[in-house]
Amino acid sequence: MRSSQYLLSTIKETPADAEVISHKLMLRAGMIRRVASGMYTYLPTGVRVLRKVEQIVREEMNKAGAIEVLMPMVQPAELWQESGRWDKMDAELLRFKDRHTRDFVLGPTHEEVITDLVRREITSYKQLPLNLYQIQTKFRDERRPRFGVMRAREFLMKDAYSFHLSQDSLQQTYNAMYQAYCNIFSRLGLDFRPVLADTGAIGGSMSHEFHVLAASGEDAIAFSDESDYAANIEMAEALAPQGERAAAKQDLAEVATPNAKTVADVATLLQQDMALVSKTLIVYAAKADDKAPQTLVALVLRGDHELNEIKAEKLPQVQSPLVFASEEEIRAAISAGPGSLGPVGMPIPVIVDRSAAHLSDFICGANKDGYHLTGVNWDRDIKDYSVADLRNIVEGDASPCGKGKLVVKRGIEVGHIFQLGERYSQALKAGVLNEDGKHQIMTMGCYGVGVSRIIAAAIEQNHDENGIIWPDAIAPFQIALIPMNMHKSVRIEEATVRLYNELTAAGFEVLFDDRKERPGVMFADMELMGIPHSIVVGERNLDNLQVEYKNRRSGEKEMLDISAVVEAMAHKLAK
Amino acid sequence: MRSSQYLLSTIKETPADAEVISHKLMLRAGMIRRVASGMYTYLPTGVRVLRKVEQIVREEMNKAGAIEVLMPMVQPAELWQESGRWDKMDAELLRFKDRHTRDFVLGPTHEEVITDLVRREITSYKQLPLNLYQIQTKFRDERRPRFGVMRAREFLMKDAYSFHLSQDSLQQTYNAMYQAYCNIFSRLGLDFRPVLADTGAIGGSMSHEFHVLAASGEDAIAFSDESDYAANIEMAEALAPQGERAAAKQDLAEVATPNAKTVADVATLLQQDMALVSKTLIVYAAKADDKAPQTLVALVLRGDHELNEIKAEKLPQVQSPLVFASEEEIRAAISAGPGSLGPVGMPIPVIVDRSAAHLSDFICGANKDGYHLTGVNWDRDIKDYSVADLRNIVEGDASPCGKGKLVVKRGIEVGHIFQLGERYSQALKAGVLNEDGKHQIMTMGCYGVGVSRIIAAAIEQNHDENGIIWPDAIAPFQIALIPMNMHKSVRIEEATVRLYNELTAAGFEVLFDDRKERPGVMFADMELMGIPHSIVVGERNLDNLQVEYKNRRSGEKEMLDISAVVEAMAHKLAK
Repeated sequence: MRSSQYLLSTIKETPADAEVISHKLMLRAGMIRRVASGMYTYLPTGVRVLRKVEQIVREEMNKAGAIEVLMPMVQPAELWQESGRWDKMDAELLRFKDRHTRDFVLGPTHEEVITDLVRREITSYKQLPLNLYQIQTKFRDERRPRFGVMRAREFLMKDAYSFHLSQDSLQQTYNAMYQAYCNIFSRLGLDFRPVLADTGAIGGSMSHEFHVLAASGEDAIAFSDESDYAANIEMAEALAPQGERAAAKQDLAEVATPNAKTVADVATLLQQDMALVSKTLIVYAAKADDKAPQTLVALVLRGDHELNEIKAEKLPQVQSPLVFASEEEIRAAISAGPGSLGPVGMPIPVIVDRSAAHLSDFICGANKDGYHLTGVNWDRDIKDYSVADLRNIVEGDASPCGKGKLVVKRGIEVGHIFQLGERYSQALKAGVLNEDGKHQIMTMGCYGVGVSRIIAAAIEQNHDENGIIWPDAIAPFQIALIPMNMHKSVRIEEATVRLYNELTAAGFEVLFDDRKERPGVMFADMELMGIPHSIVVGERNLDNLQVEYKNRRSGEKEMLDISAVVEAMAHKLAK
Repeated sequence: MRSSQYLLSTIKETPADAEVISHKLMLRAGMIRRVASGMYTYLPTGVRVLRKVEQIVREEMNKAGAIEVLMPMVQPAELWQESGRWDKMDAELLRFKDRHTRDFVLGPTHEEVITDLVRREITSYKQLPLNLYQIQTKFRDERRPRFGVMRAREFLMKDAYSFHLSQDSLQQTYNAMYQAYCNIFSRLGLDFRPVLADTGAIGGSMSHEFHVLAASGEDAIAFSDESDYAANIEMAEALAPQGERAAAKQDLAEVATPNAKTVADVATLLQQDMALVSKTLIVYAAKADDKAPQTLVALVLRGDHELNEIKAEKLPQVQSPLVFASEEEIRAAISAGPGSLGPVGMPIPVIVDRSAAHLSDFICGANKDGYHLTGVNWDRDIKDYSVADLRNIVEGDASPCGKGKLVVKRGIEVGHIFQLGERYSQALKAGVLNEDGKHQIMTMGCYGVGVSRIIAAAIEQNHDENGIIWPDAIAPFQIALIPMNMHKSVRIEEATVRLYNELTAAGFEVLFDDRKERPGVMFADMELMGIPHSIVVGERNLDNLQVEYKNRRSGEKEMLDISAVVEAMAHKLAK
């Protein structure tokens, strides 16, 4: 492709409205333009990358035995009413009426449509398992779209749905998808991690997220420094500290702590480490039935630890989703305010985090405003309590896999695989005749890849101050061919055109920058666009029948004989 | 692909709700399923065909110098308000509000979005011409969607838009697109015709439709039997009959024609050919200004010819769009009813079709209820009239190209190229600095291909009583590999698996029907799906180390040595 016949659309200035680096660089490199909030046109450079990502995803899905279908973006409300999500989903589900005032939605996902299809098409266990996927445009009416295509309203996804009659069969397809996703992200050339994920409110039994690692990532991921263990920080188990709890040495004592509102205040006042000050949080207890009055539960953690709300709301004693009691509710139950609570003499059930339960001679609120207790010891001073994993892990915690310590890194979620179970198949009565000739509801898995989001994540991970650094596999062009002052030198032009013809004939994707621009402008644009390999044709090197090669990522330069360029590039791009 | 690992979803019964053959066969062959009125899921077989069509279109667009972009399906109302189409378009334009109650549309086409993009990105004549295309999902809220994907609400289109500063430049790109479209439809293996089309109400100067010929086509197309001339029937010029008009022989005479309401009645009553009876239609005249009172015009045609409304409304004397006068309006102006009108003594302007103007001694209404005139002659009996091309051509008319006679065939429109001019660029003020440094509005072309519609059109053209007959280029699979009773014979299974591995290794797309089905069921399914080449592996032929080849289109069978199958298929598929 010659630049003069292409739409480069690079921008020098950093766009004011872009917050993250990938958004800025996608705008500056001429990949996308905003049409409306959260909606983008992909310019030619953006489309080239998008199609490459799409193709790699398609190939690996096919290889893993998934079969491609294509469902409509507009979906009838009836299916969403049948699954129950018409009422459950908030305004993110964009609803509208057609000319006959029938209700429709713009599909943010396709569980309903695919389950409806499969219940009509599949009648026998002999046709299972089945794994259907599509690469298709989705719409999610985000309240606050941002970060460019990272959190857009309209976006391209690969979504797959599998159908089974047994958990074993589901697990097999799940494993195949896990492997396919590893293959996809490896082929894309990205540093990624599969991460154990929370299955959330949907239920389901098993879930992994695939994260592209990047310092700017939204999500925190806990890794073992000695094994493959990786989990979403919400999911990572905090083990109980090793060894026996130290024996009690101090007596229980009450101290006045006026004006000490926080754990930090108390620690400072008493000149103790925050780890020795416990904190007590009061939340709604789970109700036995809807009509029972609301009761409360106390959660106790070390002062230097953070409550993990997802862990807490999974406890049978605690209401899900988690609700914190108000100050009024707390005072009514405990007769002290939030700053002075503690497990000693607590009139409501007490659940203690594993690490807090390992403390001895610790400090807690006295359940009396303005007072704390010191020298507190479990079992001696508090008899009735239970222990659970309640906290977020922190760096240095022992890895729950048993090997190494946890390290926290940041990631961008680009894929998600999920054992759905019967959530949708039950609601839509999607079953088949099993081997015994009986009607049986199918069990399902679903597997998503954010195709357009991958582009942003790849840039967050691969860029420098000059612009994007594409992995070879998804670069818009493989090679930038840059002649120096071609419009003044017939010799340069002839040599460059010859190289261009040779390289394209050999199957390389070359962007030949034939614009009448200063070399500096061309170098800057090619670097900004992140083209991984550059070849510069200049007068002086031409005297030696050579051109200069530059690697975008390493910055390394080398001289190549003009006659050996095609071979050299084949070698570099095969790597 | 093995059938057992695929989703065949063929149906024996003809679906009741499908009206046209392509819709029936797409359902029966397991290509599509209805999700809602005018919305379909493409099953795996449908997707395979869709992706092939898409890829051929993409390759030919790229080859012709167009550059791929991707615009959102959801578009902000502001752009449609700016172009004026927000108000002009009826309910086909699906409008909705997002969560912030801002107005949006589901894009049925992208002139507004692309013109907005180009006015922001392109500033100088040096960046022109520019031809941008996308392959993207569109939504048109048809009042009555039907014929499956032929007239769906959600459909896949290739739409391209070109930008220029001169008519010459537009014409060049238009010609390139004309050629690209010929290449596309040739590669798809379809019998098609580019057809001169009406530019309609949008204005614009030049337009061609590309039609796939099929007896079931919606549109009538006029061809010359001796040249390349082809035009939409609305566009085909009806030439004046050759030679001098015959001299008048009869005297003008009035005859009573009571109860003769139609041309046919009059011809029967007077025992004359309908071609000798003229008919007179009264329509609204064009007004000089909005406040002038409405006046009328008489259009005179031969009784055996049909008025072409598009030709009529293009005349400067006639109001556009065409409005026929009511009986009251006619009686007020002429004092006779519609059944008794004629040009003799007509008090309003008379425009005569070229063929009617060539009549002598003809018959017309007497402008007096229940009476006609015979022996009527132009110039002698009617002095004041003008002549124009007013009628639809009929088979046998001389071709307007000067060569041969016109033949009428039916076609399905699958492509449309159009010189838009400044319709959108003017409304959106999309201009650049020209060579003189002055701001100049760009002129535009647009070029559409109905990607999903092509599939239906291809089937309308290529099918028989057993199902679809795919052209090689867009067949879901190239080869059907059918073992006879494989599940009872290890020898058959081994031979078939070996062939399957050889054929797929050689790059062929093979559907290996490994189902436990009777041979008859497998043959019927493979024929229904239209797979162009079949190879049947049977016990008896295997004794001679042979398999049977069958061509889906010709029905011809031949025996192939097992060792020569790959070579034979390479030969057949290279054709």
